[in-house]
Amino acid sequence: MNHLHTYEDVRGKLTLLRSGLDVPFDVKRIYWIYDVPSEQNRGRHANHITWQYLVAVKGSLRVTIEDRDGRRDYCLQSPDEGLLVPPMTWNELYDFSEGAVLLVLASHDYEPETYINSLDEFRKLIAEK
Amino acid sequence: MNHLHTYEDVRGKLTLLRSGLDVPFDVKRIYWIYDVPSEQNRGRHANHITWQYLVAVKGSLRVTIEDRDGRRDYCLQSPDEGLLVPPMTWNELYDFSEGAVLLVLASHDYEPETYINSLDEFRKLIAEK
Repeated sequence: MNHLHTYEDVRGKLTLLRSGLDVPFDVKRIYWIYDVPSEQNRGRHANHITWQYLVAVKGSLRVTIEDRDGRRDYCLQSPDEGLLVPPMTWNELYDFSEGAVLLVLASHDYEPETYINSLDEFRKLIAEK
Repeated sequence: MNHLHTYEDVRGKLTLLRSGLDVPFDVKRIYWIYDVPSEQNRGRHANHITWQYLVAVKGSLRVTIEDRDGRRDYCLQSPDEGLLVPPMTWNELYDFSEGAVLLVLASHDYEPETYINSLDEFRKLIAEK
């Protein structure tokens, strides 16, 4: 998790992310996920080439990450901090709070063939490397 | 205002914006504005070179735009639509609803010298061209 530049005055707050500077990739794709029922999960995949950066711009959610260093959990709950998800990192998104909005910045366009959608297959791949 | 690709299923909604494809510029800078008191205004400037794209990913706000074609008002109130603000367009943001989050995608890094902060000066500039 890391903290993003945030500017606050009487007019409110502004949090800034510069492509290629505040994240180690050029942002090609931006999407936001919302209206997620609290019992639903999202993600549950890894990607061969894509970097992602996750920010809960509203509300909160939990993220589980798994890579060769093991498995760990994060709670995203502040619009001024984000989580970097490198390529070859399994990620699961869950426990979205009511009204939460997750902003995702990604390094590549969507290419289905770059995704690994099976955790077993992912674990075999990282064990081989 | 234009509509963005949105994917909906039982897991919620995802709205997508591709740099250089869904907006006519490469996204260099991404920021989000939040915790804006309802009586406060933001913006109140134009920019010589920067394109912006505005999306109310949560809540609603009003935007007033002024350019050589005149002055008009928009209400941003849906996470699946956005407003393109070209260079040399005066913009004012106001009437933020409680808890609103405005996502802004911009074509350039922040450079104070590219901003026009006086409406009188802006009107002189567009009248000259």
